[in-house]
Parts: sequence; structure tokens; C-alpha cells
Amino acid sequence: MLIVMKANATAHEIDAVVEVIQAIGFRAHPLPGPTRTAIGITGNEGVIDSRRFEDLPGVAEVIRVTKPYKLITLDLRPEKTIVRVGNAAIGDGELAIIAGPCAIENREQAFAVAEAVRQSGARFFRGGVWKPRTSPYTFQGLGEKGWEIMAEIREAFGLKIVTEAVDESNIDLIEQYGDVIQIGARNMQNFSLLKRAGRSKLPVLLKRGMAATLEEWLLAAEYIMAEGNYNVILCERGVRTFAQHTRNTLDLASVPAIRRISHLPVIVDPSHGTGSAYMVTPLARAGVAVGADGLMVEVHNHPELALSDGVQALTPPEYAQLIEEVRAIHKLMSSPS
Amino acid sequence: MLIVMKANATAHEIDAVVEVIQAIGFRAHPLPGPTRTAIGITGNEGVIDSRRFEDLPGVAEVIRVTKPYKLITLDLRPEKTIVRVGNAAIGDGELAIIAGPCAIENREQAFAVAEAVRQSGARFFRGGVWKPRTSPYTFQGLGEKGWEIMAEIREAFGLKIVTEAVDESNIDLIEQYGDVIQIGARNMQNFSLLKRAGRSKLPVLLKRGMAATLEEWLLAAEYIMAEGNYNVILCERGVRTFAQHTRNTLDLASVPAIRRISHLPVIVDPSHGTGSAYMVTPLARAGVAVGADGLMVEVHNHPELALSDGVQALTPPEYAQLIEEVRAIHKLMSSPS
Amino acid sequence: MLIVMKANATAHEIDAVVEVIQAIGFRAHPLPGPTRTAIGITGNEGVIDSRRFEDLPGVAEVIRVTKPYKLITLDLRPEKTIVRVGNAAIGDGELAIIAGPCAIENREQAFAVAEAVRQSGARFFRGGVWKPRTSPYTFQGLGEKGWEIMAEIREAFGLKIVTEAVDESNIDLIEQYGDVIQIGARNMQNFSLLKRAGRSKLPVLLKRGMAATLEEWLLAAEYIMAEGNYNVILCERGVRTFAQHTRNTLDLASVPAIRRISHLPVIVDPSHGTGSAYMVTPLARAGVAVGADGLMVEVHNHPELALSDGVQALTPPEYAQLIEEVRAIHKLMSSPS
Amino acid sequence: MLIVMKANATAHEIDAVVEVIQAIGFRAHPLPGPTRTAIGITGNEGVIDSRRFEDLPGVAEVIRVTKPYKLITLDLRPEKTIVRVGNAAIGDGELAIIAGPCAIENREQAFAVAEAVRQSGARFFRGGVWKPRTSPYTFQGLGEKGWEIMAEIREAFGLKIVTEAVDESNIDLIEQYGDVIQIGARNMQNFSLLKRAGRSKLPVLLKRGMAATLEEWLLAAEYIMAEGNYNVILCERGVRTFAQHTRNTLDLASVPAIRRISHLPVIVDPSHGTGSAYMVTPLARAGVAVGADGLMVEVHNHPELALSDGVQALTPPEYAQLIEEVRAIHKLMSSPS
Repeated sequence: MLIVMKANATAHEIDAVVEVIQAIGFRAHPLPGPTRTAIGITGNEGVIDSRRFEDLPGVAEVIRVTKPYKLITLDLRPEKTIVRVGNAAIGDGELAIIAGPCAIENREQAFAVAEAVRQSGARFFRGGVWKPRTSPYTFQGLGEKGWEIMAEIREAFGLKIVTEAVDESNIDLIEQYGDVIQIGARNMQNFSLLKRAGRSKLPVLLKRGMAATLEEWLLAAEYIMAEGNYNVILCERGVRTFAQHTRNTLDLASVPAIRRISHLPVIVDPSHGTGSAYMVTPLARAGVAVGADGLMVEVHNHPELALSDGVQALTPPEYAQLIEEVRAIHKLMSSPS
Repeated sequence: MLIVMKANATAHEIDAVVEVIQAIGFRAHPLPGPTRTAIGITGNEGVIDSRRFEDLPGVAEVIRVTKPYKLITLDLRPEKTIVRVGNAAIGDGELAIIAGPCAIENREQAFAVAEAVRQSGARFFRGGVWKPRTSPYTFQGLGEKGWEIMAEIREAFGLKIVTEAVDESNIDLIEQYGDVIQIGARNMQNFSLLKRAGRSKLPVLLKRGMAATLEEWLLAAEYIMAEGNYNVILCERGVRTFAQHTRNTLDLASVPAIRRISHLPVIVDPSHGTGSAYMVTPLARAGVAVGADGLMVEVHNHPELALSDGVQALTPPEYAQLIEEVRAIHKLMSSPS
Repeated sequence: MLIVMKANATAHEIDAVVEVIQAIGFRAHPLPGPTRTAIGITGNEGVIDSRRFEDLPGVAEVIRVTKPYKLITLDLRPEKTIVRVGNAAIGDGELAIIAGPCAIENREQAFAVAEAVRQSGARFFRGGVWKPRTSPYTFQGLGEKGWEIMAEIREAFGLKIVTEAVDESNIDLIEQYGDVIQIGARNMQNFSLLKRAGRSKLPVLLKRGMAATLEEWLLAAEYIMAEGNYNVILCERGVRTFAQHTRNTLDLASVPAIRRISHLPVIVDPSHGTGSAYMVTPLARAGVAVGADGLMVEVHNHPELALSDGVQALTPPEYAQLIEEVRAIHKLMSSPS
Repeated sequence: MLIVMKANATAHEIDAVVEVIQAIGFRAHPLPGPTRTAIGITGNEGVIDSRRFEDLPGVAEVIRVTKPYKLITLDLRPEKTIVRVGNAAIGDGELAIIAGPCAIENREQAFAVAEAVRQSGARFFRGGVWKPRTSPYTFQGLGEKGWEIMAEIREAFGLKIVTEAVDESNIDLIEQYGDVIQIGARNMQNFSLLKRAGRSKLPVLLKRGMAATLEEWLLAAEYIMAEGNYNVILCERGVRTFAQHTRNTLDLASVPAIRRISHLPVIVDPSHGTGSAYMVTPLARAGVAVGADGLMVEVHNHPELALSDGVQALTPPEYAQLIEEVRAIHKLMSSPS
């Protein structure tokens, strides 16, 4: 951390800052400059609250130099993480596809969609059994009844099951019947849930929060990893902005930004990232072209009758067309130029 | 709900929309206009997913008319809710003050701050024992050890204890030792937690999420009320925007906006809402002037040594000055003109 | 426009709204519903200020049905607009490339970059001669001296010249020496400048404003077209959000959103849209994959010495590699599957 | 400026950065630390583009230390600027009130409103004659015909005339007939217009842009001052965020933030800052309570028939009530406690 003093800071003010630094157990390094003095801080292993110094007399600005994350960084692990789920993987160079309905509604719907997912060559089936819904009066998911259907699909189609956990008890059930724990955008900073996921043996798919900076998102991954679970997949699903032509603004620049900092795989969700079926395929293409390791896509056999998020779900034929298009782009990008 | 058809929608497309409406159990009311047809939907008791119709052929736009909340509305309860906590209250016309440190650090700190809070005439003491922190490597609160200190303060100073719950087990403890359950911004859409709070007998202070629209915030309150707990206090604490001169952008217009829709009391948190001590008092004055029922303010006896959020905490003398200023404005506004 | 009355609105309040509608010259159509009355408005040719009715007694909500734009719409012109600039074009199915330095700095720099642009097969050369800079103390462009260099490049390389106009007198000069008038993000709602551009014979490249909704952006295009100039190219260059890992957040969903509404061609600027050279190529690929008609890219022979925006400029070899990658994606997308 | 090198940066990479610094004429000061090296830059009088170094090999981060503005700062002028307009003033400790209709529509309307403004004791009359409107099809102002009416009002009521200029020729007319040049939010970075205003003898009221950071806003003021015009009044009018219950989000924290940096007076516009009449008075109170030097308020004798922005205009009685309330708060805050 670097503390920049005001141009007119007194020697006494500089000394006072040095004393506070020492009082909390760190070393202070005053660096007098031509017009102002800066004070470096060393000796901190973790992170210092950068705002602790901002109101001391004579301080102009406090600048954080050390990044607050460790385990997610390329410094720690220069090669990319491959998350393996049985014989499937995310981050191994193949394009990982996670597809399925927003929510499991009944056996017929789930099987129809799973059949389309399997035919596309995807290895992961997504489906919500507990739905975090903005209103208490809308469909909240089938709950444990949904698990019976999911277990059948896993068995019948050989697909890996990805399901969102909304509380700690959910994780117990996913550990029993599923393959990947999804942490949704609304729970990205539910630190109790992150810690519980960090103690699981299953991989964790961590969606970006609606208003999360890159740093906050990576620190949420760090929470999981700090508990010992290194199998984290990041998922960009759009952020909240003033724009009204989409439900969220898909921030595809987060993919190269993460690549520069972290070894974790990152996928893109163009369904939640746009909220409209007609945009899903173009943004899926863009997600693959920007370099994502995979996609998460909502598919429904009857989107117009879906109990949740129908408007953003693709029909099985639309989904098949999407897969064909994104595979071609991925192949192009993987081949030596 | 109103479905606006495109200018060139065919009769067949209009019929198809009508059929979907009927298939999900509602009544359709086509309203032909000079240039386009609109179709009204009635018969829905709860909320229809407005996006269900957006991709049907011929549909230009879907417009939601019914608001998705009920219990929070002035329609349901025209008089303002007063939340009573023993002999203290929020929403009764007096200015409610909730003050205390961000986190309970030790007995000496907590008692020094509690003394300042009591002297100011405030009735509520805030203090975190479990802190939701962005980084896993920063101070996470004293945990249950903090409760011993809180229980002593409650006894010694007669202050009501307001503490944030970050998971369901926290609520059990607050029910045992505290007075008001705080749900923090990061958990505003942690629906499991909201439902648990809704089953509590204690009042719930619900902070606005960092990227929450007014509607999402009110629906989070609706989640609590739908479980039977009507004692909800809303707390504006700023939202995330592009602005960088503050930690959050305090959206004071939410206060009159809520007043227009809801009977619930609303308070303002100028400490988290700005993130800088020098801004807390001016924004506290503004919060009272805009009509809030109360304030939540961070106070620390040694802000420069605080283990969390020191930079936004006021010293006891600064806090005493703030209280004097906001009381004067509140008195002015309460007196007949 | 549709005015939704409150559930408890009186007949008198409904009549008063009807009278206001008639007083401003329109027709009112009360539509009584099961729980509340809505009032349709017809007879307006242009746009009514939707907020005019919001504060009348008994009004719950005002809903705009008619969109405020006309000329930009597919309703008016179902086939896509192709903007032709001599023997070059934007929107004709080929991928249009506009490349060059942020600012013309000197003859040597401009020629070195122009050579790279020509070799790539691009048809358009961009280069600023007047730079809108946030600070008055930074390089403001060469001004008219820059034009001599631009004129030479146009002659020597056969490239079409795209330059930003920051005031009306600039447009006079572009009309004399250039080929395409660029309106920058900061001037997207400089309506005097838009009107002047609308009276020009040259095509206009209209960048999206930093905080512009899709509707505001399309209305800015409508301003130009309303003056008679139908050759408008839209350019997505990112919007301002809370995200800090990029200079702007590139909103690629605007491309399919525009396609659904408008016949105008749309290109993507991954240089300003990210602000960092290492992100330009991935986002350029994404821009082509999402379906843009072209790209605008910053190239500099010595980015580290550039007088403006050096950090986001590609070197000529990086640029050549980008062109190869995006051409391959574009070819893939254009070929029949 | 401070350049932080990566932990594993080589001596060669550090040297290369030093060379670039020297190549552009500055001095480099390598500061080796325990884990990484930082390099200070001195010798720059103006501002260096902070992004020039970000892509050099081995660079982790570039940190700007020097602020890019000068003339607006308290460093330059420690006492507050008082803008005097004849016998009226803004920033002199009295609460300055600028009130009037959004647009001058006709003589009868303008005079009715001016009478209300005068009676309130306000010294400034606002009224648009050229209106920057989002759509080309809505009322664009009376243009020069409006000036006749404004001139009469100035004469008849002794009010100072504040009008928005949307291009340079407008400023010529304001200089002839008006008293204060307003630069609107959409033109905050129309640098040609700012420079022209900077060459005027009239004071300039500079509204904050819809997506302007504090720094950008202050730099826009710096543009005006750099041309020699030191009479600049800043006006907070809300910024664009995701929130939908208001037209803009009024960022009242900008008032104390500016006070900390700048000597310029700052006023608040609760009319545009909220967009709804029912919110104007509470936010006006908040604006005064937060410490603004004045308010700008829209008043219309028949808001429901206004040709622009009717919904946010107060009626004369509502306005009179607002003035009474804000004067009481201002008096309270000005009196010694």
C-alpha cells in the first residue's frame, strides 16, 4: 500500500501516519518526492483496509498496490486449471456446453430437453430445482421432487448434473445426486454458502454477481478456494447497467481480463446475459469468439409455456443450430493459423 | 398485463397470442386500435412472467400493469407501519437513531462507543459479530464471542441491539440475545435467509442491495412479510454506479418513492452510503431532510485503528455533532409550518 | 399511449384525465377493466411526453406504446441500408474495416499506419485532427495542419477518410477533404451538430453516447435522417458502467437489438470499447461473431509513444493478426451452413 | 505517476520502462520493494496519459498521483468563489434560487411563472429558448422569439436570466440579452462550446453530464476557466444509473466531494434530478441540507399542459411551499450552533 501525502503536509502529519502504520504492526517507508511525500507500507501478509488512512490529517490519497487475492492468480499457478467431472471437463481446450431448462417442471419436459442436450454432444445438463425468484409469488422450483427427475436423467442420458444451491442444505443434496454446484448471481457474496461450497468435493460454478467488479468476483472464488476446493468455474452472466434493451449487459471483456489474472476456466451464459431468445445465439457466438471455455444455455421444449424465464429459452431446434454455429467458431479458433 | 401487437400483426398471430393466454388459465381481451391491437390479460391473481409473450410472432411489446407486490403496499394498509421494539420505535414520528461500530472488536471498544450512543439519546446499538467481507483474508468478526459483549451492552445501557445475520443459524442467536435482525445488502436476495427472518418474531431491518431496483427491494420485503413477519424496516444504503468519489451512490429519492407505494418505515445509512467520514454528516442531514424515519450511523472510538470500515466511522464527538444537527432539521420538519 | 388509473380512482378523476387529453388535441379511449380503468390515447402523430399525465390525481402509471422514431425503423424500410462511399461500402455483406491512429500526430506516423491499413485490405482510414479530450491540458490534435496529411493519405493510398467533427465548422472541412463524418460519443446528443451533419452529403458514423439507451442512440440517428441524410452508420463503442477492468463496457447485445428495429448498418469499436490493447482482438472477434457489419480499430506504429490513447492502439503486426482472425470468422458466418 | 512492476518483472523490463519515461522527457525513480519494484515519474507539469505504460512488459499497474486539474482547486484558491451577477450572487452564503419553466412557451406562461419566482424572493429566472430534446419530433423551443419574452421579464421583474446555450451562436445572443450561460448535461463535454463560454464575460452554470465522474465534471469547468472565465457554477442534476423510480439518480454526495477539492459554488437541480414533481420538494430540502449553495427548480403555471417536462414542474403554490421549507433549513444551518 502507498499513502500519498498532500503537497502541504507537515512533518508532524507524516510522522503521525508512520505511527499508525506501526501501531497496527506494519513497516512504514517514507519516500520524500519533489513536491510531496509518499509512504510505502510493507509487512502485511493479508490485505489492509485501504480506507483506514484516508482521513488522517495530511493524507491526499491511499493507493493499494498488493492485490487482495492469491489462490486464483497465475502467479500462484501459471498453467490453466482444468475442472474434470468424471469423463467430462471444463477448461481442457474443448468447448464445454452446459444446457437445460431454467427449472425442472416435470418429467416430460426434463426428458425432452435432456434428449436435445445429449444429441448436441453436450456433457452437462443444467436444471433448477430450487429457484431464487425475485417475487415470493412466482414458481419456486419443484424442490426435492425435482431431484428424482434429475437422478433419472443423469442415469438415462449420462449427462453431468449442474444445479444451483440457494442454501447450505441444498449442497448436501447436490453432493448426493448431482455433479456440479452452481452458485447464482444473487448469492455471489453469500459468504456462508461460498465457504460451504469450498468444503465440498464437487466443482463449483460461480456466477458473477449483478453488480460485482472483477475483483469482487475473483475474491468470491478465493473464498471457495481458501477452504480447499480448487475446482472453480467462473461464469459471466451479465451485469446490471442502465441499458434496457437487455435484462443484463453481458460483459464479454471479463473473459480476457480474467485470463490475464487467473488460471480458472470461465464460461459465458448468453441466456441470462441477454434475457431474450433472439439474442442468445449471436451472443453465444460472441462468447466463444472472445475465448470462453464454454457456454451455459437455457433450452425448453415449450418456451412459451415455461414456468420461469421462458422468454430467454431456446427451442431444441434453435439450440441445435446454436451448437453448430459455436462449434464452427471454436474449431476455427483452435486450429493453428 | 397488456400485450401490444406489431402494426402489421396478422389476425392469426393475434389469435395465437389469445390461445397462449387461455392455455395458461387467464382471460384475453383484444383491444383493436387505429394502428395496432393490444391484448389485455385478466384473471391472474399473482404475477405472470412478462417475458413469456415477448417472442411470440407479431408481439411488439409486453407491458406489465399489475405490480407484483401486495403486502408492502399502501393499498393494503394505508397508515404507516410503526415498528416497536420494547419501548423504542421506528416510524412513530420520532427520529430513530441506530448507531455503533461496524464490528464489535473488543469489550473496551464496544463500551466506549455504546456510551457515546446512549449519551446521544439514540435507542438502538448496531454492531456486527459476523462480518460479510469481500475478501476471505480480512477480519470476519468475533463471532459468538461478540455476543457476550453485546449482551452486556444491552443490559448495561438499555440499548436495543441490531445485528446483521449472514445465515440462518445467526438468526437463532439474534433471537436469543438481540432485538432487530439486519439483512445486509449482499443478502437482500438470499431468499432462504429472508424466509427464515420472516418466521422470526423480531423486526427485520432490510438493507437495499447494491444493484437492487426499488421493485426488487420491496419484493425482498414482501418475502419476509409473506411468512408472517410484518415488522420490516427498509434501509437505503446506496447503490453501485460508475461514480468513484464515493463507495456507493446514496439514492435519497428512494425515500419519497417508497412513501408513495408502501407503509413500511425507511431509514438511511450515510456511512455505507458514502464510505467516507467527511461525507457522513452532510448526507445524514440530507437523509433527514428528505423525510427518512431514521438513520444508521457508524461510530468508532478509534476509527484509524478499526478492524473494518474505519474510514467511514465517526468519532464520538463528530457523532454527537451530527445528532445535534439532524435533530434540529427533524424538529423543523415536524413542527407545523 | 396508455394511462393506467389507480384501482380506487374516481369517475371524476377519470374524466379529468380525459379532459386533459382532449385539451392537448388528442382522442381519449377509456377502457374499464375488472379492477381498474386504462385510458388509451390516439390521434398523436408525433410523441407525447409520457410524463405529462403521471401526476394527475388517480393516475397509477403512464405507458408509452408508440415508439418515438420512424425513419430508422424496419417498418419504414425493411431492407438493410448499404452506405456507399465511392467504391467502398458499409453494410453490403462484406466486413467493413475502419482503422488508423487515434490522432494524426505527424506525417511519418500517419503514413506508417496508413500503409498497414492498406495492406490489410481495409478501405477506410480513421484519424483524428481535432481531439475531444477530457482535460484541457492534453494534446488536442493537429487541427487543420492534420488535414494536409490526411489529404495526402487519401490520394496516396486510396483509402476513404473518416474523421470526427467536434463542431459545425469541422464538418465544412470534412466535406472538403474527407469521406465520412464521425460524431463522437460525447457529442451524440449535440443536436446542433447532428442537424448540421444531417444537411451534409457525406455519410455519418454515429458513435453511441457513454450513457445512451438504445432509444436515445436511435433518436440521435433520427435527428440526422430527419434533415435528409439517410447514410448513417451506428457504432457501438461501449457504455459507462461500474466495471473497472475496462474503460467502457462493450455492449455487444446492441447489435442484434438494432438489427431487430432498424435497417441501419452497425459496427463495433473494440479499441474504445475496452481501452486496453490486449483486449482489442478478442473483442473484435466477438463483435464480428455477434453480427456487426464492420469494425473500427486503433492502430499506431509506436503505441508507447502515442500522444493519445496509446494503450489501446495495436501495433501493425497485432493489427494484421486481428484482421486475419476476424476475416475467418466473418467468412464462416457468411457461408451457407 | 507511479508504475508498479509485476513481482517477477526482470531487470531488463524495468530498464525498458525507465527508457520510455525518459524518451518522453520525464525523470524516472525506481523504488525497489521487498516483493516488487515501483517506478515514480516526476518532471511532468501537465498530465501524462496513465495508460501509456500499461502494456509495457513487466508492468502490473499504473497509478496516477497528480490530479489533472489546477484552476478549480482549493490549492490554487483556498477561499470560496462568489459568482456575482449584478446585485445578485451565488456562493455568498445566501441560498441562491434559480426558478422558472423548462421552456418559454408564450408570454402569458412566462409572465405568470416569473411573477411566482419574484414573489418567492428568488433572484434568477430560468427558461429555455432552445431545448435539447432527445427526439427531433418534440417541441424544440421558441428560439429567438423566446428572447423577446425573456428580455421583457428581465426588465419587468428585475430577475437575472439563466438560459441554456446549445451552440456557439446561442452564446452570442445570451451575451446580448441574458445574464448567465447554462451548459446542459448533454453538452458537458462539448469542448468547443465550453471554450466559447470560457471566452465570455458572463458566468457559466455547468451541469453535470449524465455519466460524468466528478473528475470529468471538474475538468469541464477547468476548460472554461482555462480560457479566462473564472465565474463557473457547478450544478448537480443527477446521473444515469440502473434505477427506474427516477429519471436520474441525484448524487448529493457530489456536493461535499466538490467542497473538499474546489472553491467553485455548487447548486442542486431536484427537478431534472428526479423527474417527478412529487419528489422535487423532498430532494430540494435534502440538497440544501447537504450544503449546496443554491437550487434550480422548474415551475410552470399549468404543468399538465407544459410542452416539455411538465411532469417535474411544480405549480406556483407548490413552489412557494418548497421555498419556505428550504429557507428554514438553510437558516438553521447558517446560524451558529
